[in-house]
Amino acid sequence: MQNFIFHNPTKIIFGRGTVPQIGPETAIFGHRALLVYGRESIKKSGLYDQVTASLAQAGVAVTEHGGVSSNPLLSHVREGIAKVRAQQLDVIVAVGGGSVIDTAKAIAAGSPAACDVWDFFCGKQAVSTALPITTVLTLAATGSEMNAGTVITNEATQEKFACTHRMLYPKTSILDPELTFTVPPTYTAYGAADAIAHVLEFYMTTEDDDVPVQMEFMEGLIRNAMQSCERCLADPRDYGGRAALMWTATLALNGLTGAGLGRTAFPMHMIEHSLSALYNVPHGAGLSVVVPAWLRWRLPQDAARIAGLGQRIFGLAELDADETVWRLRGWLSTIGCPVTLAELKIPEADIPCIAANALNLARIWRLDSYSQADIEAVLSFCR
Amino acid sequence: MQNFIFHNPTKIIFGRGTVPQIGPETAIFGHRALLVYGRESIKKSGLYDQVTASLAQAGVAVTEHGGVSSNPLLSHVREGIAKVRAQQLDVIVAVGGGSVIDTAKAIAAGSPAACDVWDFFCGKQAVSTALPITTVLTLAATGSEMNAGTVITNEATQEKFACTHRMLYPKTSILDPELTFTVPPTYTAYGAADAIAHVLEFYMTTEDDDVPVQMEFMEGLIRNAMQSCERCLADPRDYGGRAALMWTATLALNGLTGAGLGRTAFPMHMIEHSLSALYNVPHGAGLSVVVPAWLRWRLPQDAARIAGLGQRIFGLAELDADETVWRLRGWLSTIGCPVTLAELKIPEADIPCIAANALNLARIWRLDSYSQADIEAVLSFCR
Repeated sequence: MQNFIFHNPTKIIFGRGTVPQIGPETAIFGHRALLVYGRESIKKSGLYDQVTASLAQAGVAVTEHGGVSSNPLLSHVREGIAKVRAQQLDVIVAVGGGSVIDTAKAIAAGSPAACDVWDFFCGKQAVSTALPITTVLTLAATGSEMNAGTVITNEATQEKFACTHRMLYPKTSILDPELTFTVPPTYTAYGAADAIAHVLEFYMTTEDDDVPVQMEFMEGLIRNAMQSCERCLADPRDYGGRAALMWTATLALNGLTGAGLGRTAFPMHMIEHSLSALYNVPHGAGLSVVVPAWLRWRLPQDAARIAGLGQRIFGLAELDADETVWRLRGWLSTIGCPVTLAELKIPEADIPCIAANALNLARIWRLDSYSQADIEAVLSFCR
Repeated sequence: MQNFIFHNPTKIIFGRGTVPQIGPETAIFGHRALLVYGRESIKKSGLYDQVTASLAQAGVAVTEHGGVSSNPLLSHVREGIAKVRAQQLDVIVAVGGGSVIDTAKAIAAGSPAACDVWDFFCGKQAVSTALPITTVLTLAATGSEMNAGTVITNEATQEKFACTHRMLYPKTSILDPELTFTVPPTYTAYGAADAIAHVLEFYMTTEDDDVPVQMEFMEGLIRNAMQSCERCLADPRDYGGRAALMWTATLALNGLTGAGLGRTAFPMHMIEHSLSALYNVPHGAGLSVVVPAWLRWRLPQDAARIAGLGQRIFGLAELDADETVWRLRGWLSTIGCPVTLAELKIPEADIPCIAANALNLARIWRLDSYSQADIEAVLSFCR
């Protein structure tokens, strides 16, 4: 096991009927909030009313910042920062999925900064402070509700980059699985694929072969992501399934999986970010295409680890790395996720262009060992 | 899954060579420290010198409070409180195992209190504030380094009681597995037994049958406690084994295992506390006797859950609850833990008296369903 620091200060309030706690939890940190959300769905569902009533009752005034898109945009982050500055807001409340929470984090970091917020994502500047953030989660997927990372797309440069800083842990995140009852099957499946991809990035890229506590934990999370996703698809209102998927997705990227693994990397995300940046595909859908392809590409180097995964996830009797990858790919197809570029309507002729875009991120993410040819090779398996 | 709040703010610094960080980490919270430790072993090993040098360099003045015993004593806690008050100390540094950290927590809670510290353990008063605590862990066992609980023995009343309050989370805990290289085989095994017992309390007493994320996590922790303990016994200087055991013991009682399980209880600890309070047996040794006995007593009610555990921990081909208990008992024997009262040199004739002592704790821990006869029945299996 490698040395590590684990320090995750986010308070998780999990369960049915917890949304009304957003007001008091937010009032601990500020009384002039930017309320960040996505589309109108939270108004139709009544969630918007619940949140705003709770905030009002706790004496928190609200400035609206709706309209967050999936693959959230830098321009929209900048608009949020302008509102915070103009109205001297002191806390950010995010109500939505990973895109909304990531937007809230970027605004929280950018508002008090002297530099442009994108400098944090390019690695030109380091975050030094941020406004406090509270969240109400509506989608089990990214884990952003309990980590310090944010991913934003710069539509001008077609770059989808990430920023991580310990000031960006949400102070409090409210996770009510019932809020995900209405998530459609496709996005339920994309969320599971996202959680599995998060675990697999750590599982596959650790260079430490003696991390049994973490390996057991990660294998359990993958099994749970799969089983709970199947439950949610069979019955969208299965509370236990929704709760298990939500908590699994949170634990998949809250720092525990990677603690002790030493240097790890996110090569699958690196490639997926290009798909999202160039074609605006849902993140989980893009990952579902990239993950099996990357595993196939890695088979020669990592056959033993992949084969072990096959035994412990799919119950394969024999060590069979190739079969493991096909099983995973098959399972992703079964739950309705795409596994080819064609299903994402991305022409194979674009592969060189996608790889070139991914190389930008490779530099920032210290994945310099990846060449254009490597990334093209991975993408060539996406069919 | 039941509603829960998870909020564990302790910063874990894990790995080789991390002890010198105790100075700067402590200086964040105070500059007049009570240094709590046990016997002279930390002086012989050089750890004492390392810690005091780091504290001095960070500008933290130290008042000594050595001499913590296993099953730490209320009288010694009160002496520590007197030192803190007399010298207006502002931070507590614990260097040792669970007993030392628990003593530090009790002093941290008792020093600023208007009431007597024992009132917190009897449930007569609630903790409202506490001095900040930092720790350097020297034994993988209790998990106190990353939780909010403390267990103290009142030698006057022969009561071993617990107190839990969120002010008692250590601010920072330093976990260097190399510090446990010199832990003797018996205490290494007791530590593993303690960690397994912590997991089993949650695993066996949850009334929620739909908590798959937690069950997987707990089963992985039990497997890891067993495997890593065996590694440490085979080679006390196996860093990977020591690291895995240490991190497993921490995760076994940091709030994650119980999150979402609803109401759980600690009946095995309830009974063990009497053994420690009356006979001063090491906590892990007492648990090793009580855990298999309690499981045998529970067989009629919980056969399915115990049998499932047998399949997933011991790889039993068939569902066999009875065999599971015997396997666990046998494994504890193999690693050198006692599994009978006789091995602890406790006469069976004392069973009524032990049960009567445990009943005191039953009332405080809301285990009122346990009668004198129930506890005697459990203890009757300890042979």
